[in-house]
Amino acid sequence: MSAFLTSDFLLHTDVAKRLYHECAETLPIIDYHCHVSPKEIYEDCRFENVTQLWLGGDHYKWRLMRSNGIDERYITGDASDYDKFLAFARTLPLAIGNPMYHWCHLELKKYFGFEGVLNEETAPAVWKLCEEKLKDANMSVRGIIRQSGVEFIGTTDDPVDDLKYHKLLSEDESLCVRVAPSFRPDRALNLTKSDFPAYILRLGEVCKMTIGTVSDLKAALRDRIEYFNSCGCKASDHGLDRAVYERASEEELNFALQSALNGQAVQARLAEAFQTELLLFCAAEYTRLGWVMQIHYNCLRNPNSKALATLGVDRGFDCIGPDNGSRRLASLLDALYSTDTLPRTILYSLDPADNAFLDTLIGAFQGTEVAGKLQHGSAWWFNDQKQGMRDQLTSLANLSLLGNFVGMLTDSRSFLSYTRHEYFRRILCALIGEWVENGEYPNDFETLSRIVRGICYENARRYFDL
Amino acid sequence: MSAFLTSDFLLHTDVAKRLYHECAETLPIIDYHCHVSPKEIYEDCRFENVTQLWLGGDHYKWRLMRSNGIDERYITGDASDYDKFLAFARTLPLAIGNPMYHWCHLELKKYFGFEGVLNEETAPAVWKLCEEKLKDANMSVRGIIRQSGVEFIGTTDDPVDDLKYHKLLSEDESLCVRVAPSFRPDRALNLTKSDFPAYILRLGEVCKMTIGTVSDLKAALRDRIEYFNSCGCKASDHGLDRAVYERASEEELNFALQSALNGQAVQARLAEAFQTELLLFCAAEYTRLGWVMQIHYNCLRNPNSKALATLGVDRGFDCIGPDNGSRRLASLLDALYSTDTLPRTILYSLDPADNAFLDTLIGAFQGTEVAGKLQHGSAWWFNDQKQGMRDQLTSLANLSLLGNFVGMLTDSRSFLSYTRHEYFRRILCALIGEWVENGEYPNDFETLSRIVRGICYENARRYFDL
Amino acid sequence: MSAFLTSDFLLHTDVAKRLYHECAETLPIIDYHCHVSPKEIYEDCRFENVTQLWLGGDHYKWRLMRSNGIDERYITGDASDYDKFLAFARTLPLAIGNPMYHWCHLELKKYFGFEGVLNEETAPAVWKLCEEKLKDANMSVRGIIRQSGVEFIGTTDDPVDDLKYHKLLSEDESLCVRVAPSFRPDRALNLTKSDFPAYILRLGEVCKMTIGTVSDLKAALRDRIEYFNSCGCKASDHGLDRAVYERASEEELNFALQSALNGQAVQARLAEAFQTELLLFCAAEYTRLGWVMQIHYNCLRNPNSKALATLGVDRGFDCIGPDNGSRRLASLLDALYSTDTLPRTILYSLDPADNAFLDTLIGAFQGTEVAGKLQHGSAWWFNDQKQGMRDQLTSLANLSLLGNFVGMLTDSRSFLSYTRHEYFRRILCALIGEWVENGEYPNDFETLSRIVRGICYENARRYFDL
Repeated sequence: MSAFLTSDFLLHTDVAKRLYHECAETLPIIDYHCHVSPKEIYEDCRFENVTQLWLGGDHYKWRLMRSNGIDERYITGDASDYDKFLAFARTLPLAIGNPMYHWCHLELKKYFGFEGVLNEETAPAVWKLCEEKLKDANMSVRGIIRQSGVEFIGTTDDPVDDLKYHKLLSEDESLCVRVAPSFRPDRALNLTKSDFPAYILRLGEVCKMTIGTVSDLKAALRDRIEYFNSCGCKASDHGLDRAVYERASEEELNFALQSALNGQAVQARLAEAFQTELLLFCAAEYTRLGWVMQIHYNCLRNPNSKALATLGVDRGFDCIGPDNGSRRLASLLDALYSTDTLPRTILYSLDPADNAFLDTLIGAFQGTEVAGKLQHGSAWWFNDQKQGMRDQLTSLANLSLLGNFVGMLTDSRSFLSYTRHEYFRRILCALIGEWVENGEYPNDFETLSRIVRGICYENARRYFDL
Repeated sequence: MSAFLTSDFLLHTDVAKRLYHECAETLPIIDYHCHVSPKEIYEDCRFENVTQLWLGGDHYKWRLMRSNGIDERYITGDASDYDKFLAFARTLPLAIGNPMYHWCHLELKKYFGFEGVLNEETAPAVWKLCEEKLKDANMSVRGIIRQSGVEFIGTTDDPVDDLKYHKLLSEDESLCVRVAPSFRPDRALNLTKSDFPAYILRLGEVCKMTIGTVSDLKAALRDRIEYFNSCGCKASDHGLDRAVYERASEEELNFALQSALNGQAVQARLAEAFQTELLLFCAAEYTRLGWVMQIHYNCLRNPNSKALATLGVDRGFDCIGPDNGSRRLASLLDALYSTDTLPRTILYSLDPADNAFLDTLIGAFQGTEVAGKLQHGSAWWFNDQKQGMRDQLTSLANLSLLGNFVGMLTDSRSFLSYTRHEYFRRILCALIGEWVENGEYPNDFETLSRIVRGICYENARRYFDL
Repeated sequence: MSAFLTSDFLLHTDVAKRLYHECAETLPIIDYHCHVSPKEIYEDCRFENVTQLWLGGDHYKWRLMRSNGIDERYITGDASDYDKFLAFARTLPLAIGNPMYHWCHLELKKYFGFEGVLNEETAPAVWKLCEEKLKDANMSVRGIIRQSGVEFIGTTDDPVDDLKYHKLLSEDESLCVRVAPSFRPDRALNLTKSDFPAYILRLGEVCKMTIGTVSDLKAALRDRIEYFNSCGCKASDHGLDRAVYERASEEELNFALQSALNGQAVQARLAEAFQTELLLFCAAEYTRLGWVMQIHYNCLRNPNSKALATLGVDRGFDCIGPDNGSRRLASLLDALYSTDTLPRTILYSLDPADNAFLDTLIGAFQGTEVAGKLQHGSAWWFNDQKQGMRDQLTSLANLSLLGNFVGMLTDSRSFLSYTRHEYFRRILCALIGEWVENGEYPNDFETLSRIVRGICYENARRYFDL
């Protein structure tokens, strides 16, 4: 029996152990998609206690606590930080089989040196330990990034953002990591959202223009894309509830835009056509500039309208939104491919049932600019756990070319989440180790380590042109 | 190599064996959802032979025999009980990898002391053994329930049922088990079925009223809900072909109802709106009374119309009915949550591809009344087998909080099916044992046994307020 | 640790090893569905080098190379055979976890005696070895078939085909294998394809009639079905993008046909109704003649229109096309069953998420003509790999009757693909071995070997009436 969370955590074969400890463990981290704050990096923020770190913005933990019947007061409410931590610690032991159980203990071990188990009994001691440890110099934001071996951070930014902190960071010579913005124009593409008119107004202000037509909007977006590019942006990101591909005439699209700007309802068909038109436009811009396009889809956001009204967005109420958009997504890629405007693209579906489809879809639109131009992104959000990652890796290996995979990203708001790269690397090495031990791939350490280094580091470096 | 069906059946780690034998094995059974007959319990029926027990109403076995090319005469027809048993015994060895192989042998072992293997050769001896054994005092219905350690049985009952046997059972002091009805108003909600008008007439008679409007129907249902409640009902159950959420005006709904009562066709949209309206109404009633709502969906019932015409319903011709109702199901929960009328709810989809969706959906609608207020029900029907249960448990663990799961139910018409609780408990302990042995959870027996006891017994007791 | 690709490849239990080596390994092969050329068999073609064998028509390998960023010149273009081979050899090591890695090495081992690993370094030696070995007498098409132990080959043929080579083969007494055509009338059923009018004209010519109505078309198809039957045809095959079931009047169908023949667009609904009508018609014919009907669906063909325009069909650009057609497919079977025109039928979906649905659907339409009249076909195309086959087998075992499964087919254009039967047999024996070693099925070698022989050989022989 393996003890809990040893240095060989998740590694059960000799090949896996060797691959992890000799290749993967010490590779730098390229965290090409996350939601950390460039301001917090620039200001090198510090945290007072573990609740600020863990429960300040982590919707995974909030969900878990709600599933334990805990009152919102102890989750996002006005209970004390200590009481919130206790409520979480009481919940954690029930989370057997949940990645949160591993993430928490990996973080406590790596950053706080805690080798025990967190539960209601140990919570007071863990609280105190973290409080002490957080005073250490290397537990500031930059300290955490440094000790985690992070080489690149791709944040997620709105087109109207002035990227002030990215500029400051790029001028800061003491910085140990490269930080680049990513362009996420969701709000400009979704004209069914109530804040769309206000957003377009703001975008117009930023671009010093009036946006009244689709053509204006494209000009504004191009303006911001150029600006982001000048600030070192390498990638974009699109979050779609579901895959879209719908076409309409310029007239219809302008009509839809004007209706939305006037606060009038827009037909679903036109709203999707509008989104399609702008996705195609943006993709062509990304292609021109050599950016990577990321598409995250099949997410059912804010299904609980009462929680949305009282707590707001991104509070842990979203869920997987299965929707068979296979033909639409294929049509979108086809439209881009046939006009030579398909950029390097990473596709992520929140529905794990889409794995096989995505792994075959990307095979139909590859290119010669880079090996693995079209990618099926790492197991996303709810799927970012041992089974989900194994499923994504196995499907990708079976149906595409695993050796060219660009690997892991945290997608996180927390600076402690770099342990998720460790988690991924262990799972990857474990899987490859199993194949080798079972005689399904030769035990050739050089080739194996080339593959592992590629997936953990080199492929992303090449793909994002770092 | 493990021998077949030893006392450590399915348990391959020391942790699993200890958890099963020291915690799970002897816990009482709360069978909160099944289809056994309260009349048979009250009358303490006996069975003459194994065919009556096994092939009298078990559509799983009928399917298996049909898949073996066996004539219907030996399945549901007029062949002798012995010949039917022989035909089944001839089929069973081919069912390698099928839960039926395990269920049959678990039942033969537990209730008949048969340690061998059933096949064409052993069938005559098994027939004789069962015939003898069925004469034992403890092989009556109550005897089987008693020796199985069943503490609670939730039957499935129609609103028009007078619950006569439930009342008699509740007054029977010799009874060793608590038996409660469950409210299953499917026939009142589905106005596209040909027997809908007759059913509504019958419901009106039972309630001593005329049902001409939706409002009347609600009054009648409330009347029956109150009656069921007075008879100890704790739970309801809704079987839906697919998830519904469609709204219509009161006028439209009354028009739909009246059309159906007149034998006229009703638009699909209105039929779904009608079902939605009554689901919302019933759910509010359940909430008021503290009942649990169960929703079983994505079932394609009676796809074979010829078999339906000749053999009737529930004869083993149903199948999994994938249908992407994720947004509709979310809307239904949202409508209830936003009006504070969402009861404790257990969701079951017949399509295993819905696991991940359901495990995230429930996380968006939890409450503080009870830990795990929203539940993803145990692997249902076709999924009630080793792989299906592992998948449901793994997904639930990854995406929700396994420790609060209310666990297993038989959903069965047979009194021998209590061995399915044993099957589930072995699979649960095996899975947890693997996690612990792999170092993914601490080997802390006290915590582990609390979790196992919870899932196998305590959580359901708390959830159903027993 | 197992070495790579030993004689016990994929077999990790004693039961699996014994079942494979004593039962499965030497059984003849019934390859009831493939795409090899009867002309090449008749002419006993030879190949000059491994590129002709491997890269001449194998879209799996082309996809893999494209996923590695290789220029089309080295894939389907005008690069030399040697350079193409080098480009492929450079790609292969990255295909860790991909069935291609196993298929290639199984083929190199079995047919060329190569025991090493193919990569960029070993490529020149492998090239030379293959070149030499291909001069051997037993490396002609017939030689490969003979040494592979193939007993029956079912090719895939168009209704307009004159089956000239099938006739010649049937008269060739030196032939060591039975070769029969399969009837694949896709082009006659799909009136949305641009070549439909030309095809119908050609079909009319072959049948010496003018096809102007649906009734004419049926007469023509019946004519060809009779002809195929006279040439030994035992089976048909239908490739559908998605499951269809739509009805229309004869008038509407004739209108749709005439529109299509005139090059006019046809409503999607009518196109599906047309396809449905002809599927029902053909199925009735197959039933009359005792043929097997195969339906392959949920494939998204040619999503990349530019690649289609430049490279043509079947060039490795297709992908899985999830589409929830469960109710339509059930309706199609129901329409046939209720008119006693449902033939023996094998259903294959390209979407692995359909496994559970299919395994329950077939259970609703079985018959007594043959055990396992309705079949869920072996893991198809992209799913034809270890995980995909295990998933299909496990689901089939859980939800149907594995013992009656008709097993593997190559679906291949290559004569080296018979190793896929070996691959399948190893995976089957491994799975059964695991069940037995885990105590889930008795270790009764006689019963186990009967099951294995059935799935690998006997069931197909009985099912196809060979």
